[in-house]
Amino acid sequence: MSVNTFGRLLRFTTWGESHGPALGAVVDGCPPGLALSETAIQPYLDARRPGQSKFTTQRQEPDAVRILSGVFEGRSTGTPISLMIENVDQRSKDYSEVAKAYRPGHADYAYDAKYGFRDYRGGGRSSARETAARVAAGAVARLVIPEVAILGYVAEIGGDAIDPARFDPAEIGNNPFFCPDAAAAARWEKIVDEARLAGSSVGAVVECVASGVPAGWGAPLYGKLDADLAAAMMGINAVKGVEIGDGFAAARLTGEQNADPMRPGNDGPVFTENHAGGIAGGISTGQPVKVRVAFKPTSSILTPVETIDRDGQATEIRTKGRHDPCVGIRGVPVVEAMMALVLADHKLLHRGQCG
Amino acid sequence: MSVNTFGRLLRFTTWGESHGPALGAVVDGCPPGLALSETAIQPYLDARRPGQSKFTTQRQEPDAVRILSGVFEGRSTGTPISLMIENVDQRSKDYSEVAKAYRPGHADYAYDAKYGFRDYRGGGRSSARETAARVAAGAVARLVIPEVAILGYVAEIGGDAIDPARFDPAEIGNNPFFCPDAAAAARWEKIVDEARLAGSSVGAVVECVASGVPAGWGAPLYGKLDADLAAAMMGINAVKGVEIGDGFAAARLTGEQNADPMRPGNDGPVFTENHAGGIAGGISTGQPVKVRVAFKPTSSILTPVETIDRDGQATEIRTKGRHDPCVGIRGVPVVEAMMALVLADHKLLHRGQCG
Amino acid sequence: MSVNTFGRLLRFTTWGESHGPALGAVVDGCPPGLALSETAIQPYLDARRPGQSKFTTQRQEPDAVRILSGVFEGRSTGTPISLMIENVDQRSKDYSEVAKAYRPGHADYAYDAKYGFRDYRGGGRSSARETAARVAAGAVARLVIPEVAILGYVAEIGGDAIDPARFDPAEIGNNPFFCPDAAAAARWEKIVDEARLAGSSVGAVVECVASGVPAGWGAPLYGKLDADLAAAMMGINAVKGVEIGDGFAAARLTGEQNADPMRPGNDGPVFTENHAGGIAGGISTGQPVKVRVAFKPTSSILTPVETIDRDGQATEIRTKGRHDPCVGIRGVPVVEAMMALVLADHKLLHRGQCG
Amino acid sequence: MSVNTFGRLLRFTTWGESHGPALGAVVDGCPPGLALSETAIQPYLDARRPGQSKFTTQRQEPDAVRILSGVFEGRSTGTPISLMIENVDQRSKDYSEVAKAYRPGHADYAYDAKYGFRDYRGGGRSSARETAARVAAGAVARLVIPEVAILGYVAEIGGDAIDPARFDPAEIGNNPFFCPDAAAAARWEKIVDEARLAGSSVGAVVECVASGVPAGWGAPLYGKLDADLAAAMMGINAVKGVEIGDGFAAARLTGEQNADPMRPGNDGPVFTENHAGGIAGGISTGQPVKVRVAFKPTSSILTPVETIDRDGQATEIRTKGRHDPCVGIRGVPVVEAMMALVLADHKLLHRGQCG
Repeated sequence: MSVNTFGRLLRFTTWGESHGPALGAVVDGCPPGLALSETAIQPYLDARRPGQSKFTTQRQEPDAVRILSGVFEGRSTGTPISLMIENVDQRSKDYSEVAKAYRPGHADYAYDAKYGFRDYRGGGRSSARETAARVAAGAVARLVIPEVAILGYVAEIGGDAIDPARFDPAEIGNNPFFCPDAAAAARWEKIVDEARLAGSSVGAVVECVASGVPAGWGAPLYGKLDADLAAAMMGINAVKGVEIGDGFAAARLTGEQNADPMRPGNDGPVFTENHAGGIAGGISTGQPVKVRVAFKPTSSILTPVETIDRDGQATEIRTKGRHDPCVGIRGVPVVEAMMALVLADHKLLHRGQCG
Repeated sequence: MSVNTFGRLLRFTTWGESHGPALGAVVDGCPPGLALSETAIQPYLDARRPGQSKFTTQRQEPDAVRILSGVFEGRSTGTPISLMIENVDQRSKDYSEVAKAYRPGHADYAYDAKYGFRDYRGGGRSSARETAARVAAGAVARLVIPEVAILGYVAEIGGDAIDPARFDPAEIGNNPFFCPDAAAAARWEKIVDEARLAGSSVGAVVECVASGVPAGWGAPLYGKLDADLAAAMMGINAVKGVEIGDGFAAARLTGEQNADPMRPGNDGPVFTENHAGGIAGGISTGQPVKVRVAFKPTSSILTPVETIDRDGQATEIRTKGRHDPCVGIRGVPVVEAMMALVLADHKLLHRGQCG
Repeated sequence: MSVNTFGRLLRFTTWGESHGPALGAVVDGCPPGLALSETAIQPYLDARRPGQSKFTTQRQEPDAVRILSGVFEGRSTGTPISLMIENVDQRSKDYSEVAKAYRPGHADYAYDAKYGFRDYRGGGRSSARETAARVAAGAVARLVIPEVAILGYVAEIGGDAIDPARFDPAEIGNNPFFCPDAAAAARWEKIVDEARLAGSSVGAVVECVASGVPAGWGAPLYGKLDADLAAAMMGINAVKGVEIGDGFAAARLTGEQNADPMRPGNDGPVFTENHAGGIAGGISTGQPVKVRVAFKPTSSILTPVETIDRDGQATEIRTKGRHDPCVGIRGVPVVEAMMALVLADHKLLHRGQCG
Repeated sequence: MSVNTFGRLLRFTTWGESHGPALGAVVDGCPPGLALSETAIQPYLDARRPGQSKFTTQRQEPDAVRILSGVFEGRSTGTPISLMIENVDQRSKDYSEVAKAYRPGHADYAYDAKYGFRDYRGGGRSSARETAARVAAGAVARLVIPEVAILGYVAEIGGDAIDPARFDPAEIGNNPFFCPDAAAAARWEKIVDEARLAGSSVGAVVECVASGVPAGWGAPLYGKLDADLAAAMMGINAVKGVEIGDGFAAARLTGEQNADPMRPGNDGPVFTENHAGGIAGGISTGQPVKVRVAFKPTSSILTPVETIDRDGQATEIRTKGRHDPCVGIRGVPVVEAMMALVLADHKLLHRGQCG
């Protein structure tokens, strides 16, 4: 089966391959009357766009989005919003090697096993290029939740973490790593560059915090806010782990240590801690919603790896071409987009049931 | 909104509260002709059943399942299978404290914020007692995937992990912790007992491995096998983190270290490593599917915690009553059940699209 | 596949067979805080209950509903509402004939073709007995839409239609046919009784009108209000046709004749006609929503009909046992229930997207 | 809410407005390996294309479809298939009248009531122009069910029906009405032309028969084949009634008359009649699947009709511009497309559950 739609009331469907003519998303269920134009979407695509530093792939894509439907006189109409991004820099190269042999860590073998054949050009549908469509859809979702501020950043690269004491959101835009710690950014420059020059790759951890989420969003028991976030994040290319709040660290705390005490406040309760990451019983509590996402190192590396070809014969493969040495970096706008999409959907779901 | 259904082709819907007359699950989409009776389900419920050691809640529930529909002459008919478990030991106690004040870490406040009021008796719908329904549904799912063997166990309690070198699946049934390492089980006895006696609680990490999953199951891009597993696991009570394969550790590897080389084999490719946890591009690869799940410490503790009451006034609360000092232990049968449910659903989905 | 769930935000899932221990529905997504108890549901089940006149099956079922979850202190909690009805009068009879041969017009052959075997006792899952679960779910839905009044009745039996000039809603409860025309009811008594005594059966047309539906409910383009109603009605046992407003008669009008002119009103527009049946572009207009539903004659007849047995050999079958000579009569409460369920779902959907 | 997706395993999502830059469909869940190119789709769009005779709207649209994804080297890959059709002939006209006043019979008022405003150009999203996207999607669906032959035609225009004795499928392509009865076609020419010249419009009944559907497709109880067909057909613009098999006529038969006797055959049972229209209990029986669909007369007429404007003031409106005098005619390719989409979906659903 193929499931290219995400969401319940606010749903989006994406389409497109890495080397096809275009890719896109259809966003359905958006409330009417929201101010929407290409300029509301483009900045988020620009943040994700490749080729902006030597730390990302050198594929040059303007990623210019076009709105084809669902907007009239600058406002959403409540009908489906079709977003299209043309592919421009599908470099004409020789794919014969990838066509024949399976790149370990990539979806090559799995797609062949499932579908019998695959569009091998640049990874086809399994390419992270598809995340441009998610980012475009996420920009629409942000309009649905103006009360929420979403902040994503890289917290760790190659095992080197930021120092929480140095956390400065203003730094995030000052370096090519979405890093909120200037000192860490300086170290990462070396780490990523070394990986790049060696034809190797490194992993990363992305964090994302949504502030302003009111208490009460979530759809227990099988559309819990945290479960939906987990699906949204684990579904991003190269992601292997998701944590809400303290995540795995919570498993090493006692009940006393892990409690989030509540105090009276002027505008609802004040939580003096946030181990829970803003979600209890699958429903938002009014605390900031916090998620941590682990990205594996890019599977495309120059070092030859043992593999087999389509005929099952032993061979080895090294992945040439243009790749991100740390795919987690450009994951930040994608994580933010998925956060926005999940929250917007749950805002509408809550309103639908509970008025 | 309320979403109490999980799955796409094999779907289950659960219902019931901790202190209502019964709880249950309706399993829809099950293939016809499978041998099914209460005796195929009961053992899994028995594994999850409370009151079997001093390390779990002392609530005494037989958790006897009844099949009310969907089975004829011992075989599934293809119509919905209604499973019901009566609640027996809803102890008549005074809930006035929980009714008035919010227990931090519990869903009390979130449910009130969402729905305006709540069934506070034993946590109502948000109680982990609901997981009995998942386990029953999971037993049906297992019949759909006889080719798959699922093995769940506790890998860590209170920060104390098993020794992989001592891993022995035969040990899992020999101790009250689903622990595959006899030495660790001995240590955990002390850890959990101390927490219990202190009225405190500890967290745990559960691992689950599914062997025999063929390559090709998964529904890219928004019903990926790993994304569905992440949602399934994160939706279990008290879970705060999910990893596939190496999970967060993968973020600290290089591309070379993280590769899973492939070699020719008699029956499809042989992978010499399994960092990926058996999933690439959201599709199974034929390797064992591996998931790790972090359970927070039980929120119900005897130590008083600061909180507020329904009127927003400051108060404090200590949770008396019968509780698991380590809720992760009884999470093992639930994690296994969710693994079975996700895999069975994807088997049918794959067959539907790809024949 | 098996799809036993209906609805989007307000969803219900039914389960159960004609001769199983019980049947039921799980209603999910119901708004919290609604006054709900068995007494709010039972009257609708009583209206559908068999054995109340000689014009319906003589099977004696109290159809007493039990609420097993989702209600606390007399109010809906927002969690799933489990409704159960025990089967009482599953007469112990010899099913060997039905087990072996296919009754034309029944689902016997189709179920065997699909599932490989079937629960043949009383039609199993395909029995109209399942509609009790729909009626129970519909009673919950009515609580969601207190602004709407739903009126169903039989408009035609055996080709003999009511006289619109004699339409009197007060008559509907005065006869065993849900007939709003006393003169027609008198004629139908003869028609249905003759069919009954001859071991034959007759068809019927049911009409249903929902007043008070505000303009704006509907989910274009593939969840249109009329499309959802069509699915809801066509899915009822024995239904072969559905009309909205003038239905097929509209195909014989000119554009001028079919127009529904609008005039200013104190409370929104006033429509001077209602050919459209209250729906335009899949969205309610504020006019009464009108649907007409055609029920075929009961397929169970005493006259022998040519058929084949499970081995494909020629045989003939006559259906003994207890049957409704006109299954459309008891269709009225079912049509009303489905109307309520569709409207309630769309009320929530509209609120979700449009606030 | 907005629901622009149809189907379960084979799903399509459409987008686009009558006067936007383009419209399209994303078809998801298509099996891999099917031969697919624009030339497999275009003929069906050409059949629906406007401006081909004086009996349809004179809007000139090439309706050239472009495949943007999901196809590689001439075969479907199993990933979403994005289909786009550019709008070419959005005549620059003055929409001020339609912008201000509501056209009775159109969705103008309902859209305003739902969304607060609307894209009024040519009906925006509610225009029948959107059905081009359904026809394109339907062409993909046909590839999924090569065993099925679908034949649609107009059976009645303005109350004048074809003579079943003169039914000749070869005639359908010989006249501009998809009419299988040459004599009726000659009469209809006069009927439609008179309506056209008078600025009036007439209704039509479309029939569609699918041969070759094997027994066993259908998803009881809430995704029954007939219920899905009813939703599919009732969701087409201007449709007000749907019948399966004998439809409303069945309500006037006795059980004996309505029976479909079965006889042994070489390749499954032979039904000697087909009152049921090929569906029993929501599941196909192996007989031809038959549906009848009532189209109301086009609501756009030159005769002034009383209405109100956006401010609720009385006015009247006559609809100028280019319109089909009988919208049912071009409904034939749309009905066929929806038949194909429903059947293809159910083929996959059946395979998924029952192997």
